[in-house]
Amino acid sequence: MEHPENSTEYKGLTVNSGVAQPSIVNPYLKKGRFRHHQLSANDYVEGILKGNVTILGQAVTLVESTNPDHQSIAQEVIEKCLPHAGHSVRIGISGVPGAGKSTSIDAFGIHVLEAYGGKLAVLAIDPSSERSKGSILGDKTRMEKLSVHPDSFIRPSPSAGSLGGVARKTRETIILCEAAGFDKIFVETVGVGQSETACHSMVDFFLLIQLAGTGDELQGIKRGIMEMADGIVINKCDGNNVDKCQLAATQFRNALHLFPAPESGWMPQVLTYSGFYNLGIKEIWDMVFKYIDFVKDNGYFEYRRNEQAKYWMYESINEQLRNSFFQNKTIALMLENAEEQVLCGKQTSFVAAKKLLDAYFALLH
Amino acid sequence: MEHPENSTEYKGLTVNSGVAQPSIVNPYLKKGRFRHHQLSANDYVEGILKGNVTILGQAVTLVESTNPDHQSIAQEVIEKCLPHAGHSVRIGISGVPGAGKSTSIDAFGIHVLEAYGGKLAVLAIDPSSERSKGSILGDKTRMEKLSVHPDSFIRPSPSAGSLGGVARKTRETIILCEAAGFDKIFVETVGVGQSETACHSMVDFFLLIQLAGTGDELQGIKRGIMEMADGIVINKCDGNNVDKCQLAATQFRNALHLFPAPESGWMPQVLTYSGFYNLGIKEIWDMVFKYIDFVKDNGYFEYRRNEQAKYWMYESINEQLRNSFFQNKTIALMLENAEEQVLCGKQTSFVAAKKLLDAYFALLH
Repeated sequence: MEHPENSTEYKGLTVNSGVAQPSIVNPYLKKGRFRHHQLSANDYVEGILKGNVTILGQAVTLVESTNPDHQSIAQEVIEKCLPHAGHSVRIGISGVPGAGKSTSIDAFGIHVLEAYGGKLAVLAIDPSSERSKGSILGDKTRMEKLSVHPDSFIRPSPSAGSLGGVARKTRETIILCEAAGFDKIFVETVGVGQSETACHSMVDFFLLIQLAGTGDELQGIKRGIMEMADGIVINKCDGNNVDKCQLAATQFRNALHLFPAPESGWMPQVLTYSGFYNLGIKEIWDMVFKYIDFVKDNGYFEYRRNEQAKYWMYESINEQLRNSFFQNKTIALMLENAEEQVLCGKQTSFVAAKKLLDAYFALLH
Repeated sequence: MEHPENSTEYKGLTVNSGVAQPSIVNPYLKKGRFRHHQLSANDYVEGILKGNVTILGQAVTLVESTNPDHQSIAQEVIEKCLPHAGHSVRIGISGVPGAGKSTSIDAFGIHVLEAYGGKLAVLAIDPSSERSKGSILGDKTRMEKLSVHPDSFIRPSPSAGSLGGVARKTRETIILCEAAGFDKIFVETVGVGQSETACHSMVDFFLLIQLAGTGDELQGIKRGIMEMADGIVINKCDGNNVDKCQLAATQFRNALHLFPAPESGWMPQVLTYSGFYNLGIKEIWDMVFKYIDFVKDNGYFEYRRNEQAKYWMYESINEQLRNSFFQNKTIALMLENAEEQVLCGKQTSFVAAKKLLDAYFALLH
């Protein structure tokens, strides 16, 4: 192995991937030695199309890698998988920490696999996951049943820096999973920031997990997120909590009636359930799949997917334009000064911006 | 006059500006001849600082002009006014067409001037105003009392193309108005799109005008706008409509309790009023000024203004970066093809974006 950092990375990958199907052996591995960096793009594609989750996991690690060589293979793999992707139902699941997301996703996933068959991939978007190098889904033991189910593939959030970067990697991972035959994709987010917008822009249905009670429990959800939801489900509707949850459901229903109906023509539903006691789960997924039928019928499903594809192209362009500007060292130095001038009222925001741009374009020439 | 198009523009300006104080004579005008294009930046600044609304109106027209010579004088004027700006309360007022905005602003403005004194400027952001070349506030006769009040200055939305452009011009106009001694600024928007975000990013308080009734009446307000409001006021609370309005107010209050409290620490209030019968107006403005005291006390007022100044600098940078890219003719041609490739699944959004950017940067070198 020429690059020790690659070796480390590949070890990390081996640890992270493929736990869902521990019995599957990577046919491209020489026994007892970690040599999967020798796989070609075609090897990856072949493995993925056969539904080999070990290879899939390794390909996802390539997607997440910042190494340019890995990126170049990753992009080739993605391009080749693209014609086989798209045939899935993508569900975004959001809710603040404490709402019981892991337990819920475990219950949701098992129900969906048992009731509808097929294969389920659970991914995540959490740009704050740097600290744990594996994010909210890192602790797979919290999805006890799903993590050992033969038809599931669970993958933590990529831990790259920017939201744009993290979201792109998740989006590319969706393509690989779909090509590997996963026809149901869950994308989890933490309900506290911009990740929801990113998640909303890559799923067909956006499900928001809430808790009963006004005040503290709700403070964690950022403004604007509730309005993105295609469905709101109130967790922990069990024991003494049932009345409170049903009251909350009524309140949410009334609130949603004050909002205009979404573009899809679908009126967001509010349901209660208990992830822990496995109550009300069926009703939630009946609702989700009723929505999917509804929007497939009225054409919104395809319309939204097309809009999302365009959105991500423009988002990619904008992000790369911004990076080219803000990561320029000369500009970064000038920026600090410009901000100060604007804050103390010596320069308008526009003039400050204009001066920086003139400098930037002069540097490019 | 050397440039006939300038002459036209200046005539337009003469028609548009200064109606609020028809008695004021521009001292820099030679009698009976339109020669104000000869004013220097210092002449404008001097006139503005004296509170001359005719000069102010002319300066705003320069700000709105796309002529580079005008822009260069405009920017000089703005820079020189900047140290005298900032001492005002800026209120955003939004609501769909039909909510009674003009009548309300007329009543609001007269009340504010009578109860609090000072001077009031009413501006607007409406990027769709191209068609009327004068936008929602163009028909000033709809603000019967305010349009003839000696301490008011009413100015339609700039009619430049992009939202960014329109919003910037409105923001720069605020600076000029403040330097001219206007200590209360209303910024009107139409409640149907992105303009609200722009408006929200330049005001201290965002007031949303709603109507009673679920369903059709509310369909016009875009999702996400309600959550930006610091106060929601329900118009047409008069005659047979009172019960319905009070019910709606209760519903909005309940709905707002489901949202987390805004960063300001202020719980958005919901009030009812009648713009036409002039009922409940005092309570609204007691509320607005209570909010202003509250956020001045807790430091949020200054914090928000600083964040806004920074926001607009970054927004300006991003817009100019985007313009440089998307207005490039070679790129525009490539873009169409790239979009097609992405939509038919031949290329990922990211790869399509990357190719376009590589081409763009190659063109710049």
